[in-house]
Amino acid sequence: MNTHADRRTPVEDLAGFIETAYLKVGLPEKDAKLAAGLMAEADRIGADGHGVFRLPQYIERIQAGGMNITPDIRIDSERAAMAVLNGDNAMGHLVIHRAAQIAMEKAETCGIGWVGVHHSNHAGPAALYAKMPMERDMIGLYCAIGNANHLPPWGGTEMLLSTNPIAVGVPSGEQAPIVLDMATTVAAYGKVKQKVMSGEMMPEGWMVDKLGQPLTDPRRADEGFLLPIGGPKGYGLGLIIGILAGTLNGAAFGRDVIDFNADNKTTTNTGQFVLALDIAAFMDVDEFKRQVDVVWETMKSSPKLPGFDEIRLPGERSHQVSVDRGTHGIPVHPDLRIRLDALAAKLGIDPLT
Amino acid sequence: MNTHADRRTPVEDLAGFIETAYLKVGLPEKDAKLAAGLMAEADRIGADGHGVFRLPQYIERIQAGGMNITPDIRIDSERAAMAVLNGDNAMGHLVIHRAAQIAMEKAETCGIGWVGVHHSNHAGPAALYAKMPMERDMIGLYCAIGNANHLPPWGGTEMLLSTNPIAVGVPSGEQAPIVLDMATTVAAYGKVKQKVMSGEMMPEGWMVDKLGQPLTDPRRADEGFLLPIGGPKGYGLGLIIGILAGTLNGAAFGRDVIDFNADNKTTTNTGQFVLALDIAAFMDVDEFKRQVDVVWETMKSSPKLPGFDEIRLPGERSHQVSVDRGTHGIPVHPDLRIRLDALAAKLGIDPLT
Repeated sequence: MNTHADRRTPVEDLAGFIETAYLKVGLPEKDAKLAAGLMAEADRIGADGHGVFRLPQYIERIQAGGMNITPDIRIDSERAAMAVLNGDNAMGHLVIHRAAQIAMEKAETCGIGWVGVHHSNHAGPAALYAKMPMERDMIGLYCAIGNANHLPPWGGTEMLLSTNPIAVGVPSGEQAPIVLDMATTVAAYGKVKQKVMSGEMMPEGWMVDKLGQPLTDPRRADEGFLLPIGGPKGYGLGLIIGILAGTLNGAAFGRDVIDFNADNKTTTNTGQFVLALDIAAFMDVDEFKRQVDVVWETMKSSPKLPGFDEIRLPGERSHQVSVDRGTHGIPVHPDLRIRLDALAAKLGIDPLT
Repeated sequence: MNTHADRRTPVEDLAGFIETAYLKVGLPEKDAKLAAGLMAEADRIGADGHGVFRLPQYIERIQAGGMNITPDIRIDSERAAMAVLNGDNAMGHLVIHRAAQIAMEKAETCGIGWVGVHHSNHAGPAALYAKMPMERDMIGLYCAIGNANHLPPWGGTEMLLSTNPIAVGVPSGEQAPIVLDMATTVAAYGKVKQKVMSGEMMPEGWMVDKLGQPLTDPRRADEGFLLPIGGPKGYGLGLIIGILAGTLNGAAFGRDVIDFNADNKTTTNTGQFVLALDIAAFMDVDEFKRQVDVVWETMKSSPKLPGFDEIRLPGERSHQVSVDRGTHGIPVHPDLRIRLDALAAKLGIDPLT
């Protein structure tokens, strides 16, 4: 993470740049600030493919009329512990931020809160939203339908499923919080793109071609598809996430999913959901956090396999990155910087410092 | 599934046999009937390692004083949409049945209901409980901490995690319901035991030895551990299930997990949870079921990879088995029948017909 340590951008500068870009294309002040803050936070926690990296694409979609910059994000239906939120084709960040707020409010009274959304959009890294309830001593869980299909059902060849991720954030005491953020495929599609950029081959097990044979050349990614974790199990898990995040909310799933990389205009009708669990409803919060520390320390204390220096907990590396970047700023890859400079010139705003 | 088609036991006869055994060791009439019905149902849906197969072990545990046959299953804490249930060391089937009932009641008013349990026990196949809410047009989700640790944290060698399964049941319209039931390991431990019985080797990827090398001889299973799906991802998922089903409910996790195969006496303090989502709170129930049928048909209609006859949906095979066994009865493996005959003789009850 220190490759570009000689040129780091402070988190607030990055957020400021994104905010200015959004203001320029017409987002209301409050929305521009909120979306920008969440995107800079994505970079801070190390989700390099899901932060400012996405800005040019989001701006293009907004300018193409594919996202609503003056949305009326509203509750379609609700009961005491759940709601279905209509994102009105807003930026996904704004929709899920609202969903998480509602889920937490409901959890505060009911013990848990579940908010599903439809007509949302790509919202960045899943961890961002699973972590929100942690600030209120709640456990957060977030699932999404990916914004492009990358794999078929198990045994098939038609790409009907995405990498449908699941993220869970668990507050801890002395240790870093435990934050799982995983695609239901062996590799996320972003990792394939990274291999193209680095000129490396992919290991077997990431992708197969349309005959089911291993595909290891990332430049041929278009000729194959990602593999789900555990074969049919990951397929099943991705399918269930599709039903819970999509079908249950009246959002797109299967053949209806719009490839947002290829199409900037069509409403994606993205589906996601956030679940918040209020720890205090289950047990004493401090005691819970102590027990999470025990889990952390127990796992860490296991003897190690040959070749492993360390046993990691989910979210540990991201936490380390976030501490480093919070202090020293965010390394923006030179290629990305070129794209962002071009964007700034196009929008007539100051380039990123 | 037709290997022993010449000798099938009707589901109700199997349930009757189990019930009689439980009555004989002192379970109250209602509890004996309920647990027996659930165990026979496990066999009906094809979970051969989780139905009557477990009866001798459960009876041994009861006779050794390791399970409470007159439990006071009670709510420890609750809010509108959640509860923590104290199983009082009852049979897991009784505890989770109660948990599912409470979750459904809460979902009926609040839209969703989450019930965690502690001081429960092994409860059979996860699908059994994920399916319960389906009868009330709800989606069910169930997670459990397995009753013996079979794998280390990723990169470690101390077995601190179990196969912690997740199951989800989704009601459908014309098609069979979609029911996912998966361990977070590549293979469930029962599959390893089956390989021992059949004299076959395991494929690479199921287990590794304590040096991280592939272990394919199932008779050497004691010398190694199961692998999680997707490597570190399955480890993370299993860990999170451990926290949600165990830590959050004050149940055992990590070093505290009792190996219930090796120890019949110690209270296991098993943790599980059930989540019910009332579909009507989200959308019109009939429309949802139609959309689930669309998901089913969409997946089925994908062109197939070479070597695949069919694309399956999660729970499809189990549904077919359950229809067959409901009509023609349950094939009880001759080896198991010998064990059940011995149990009947020991208890002084009629053998299974």
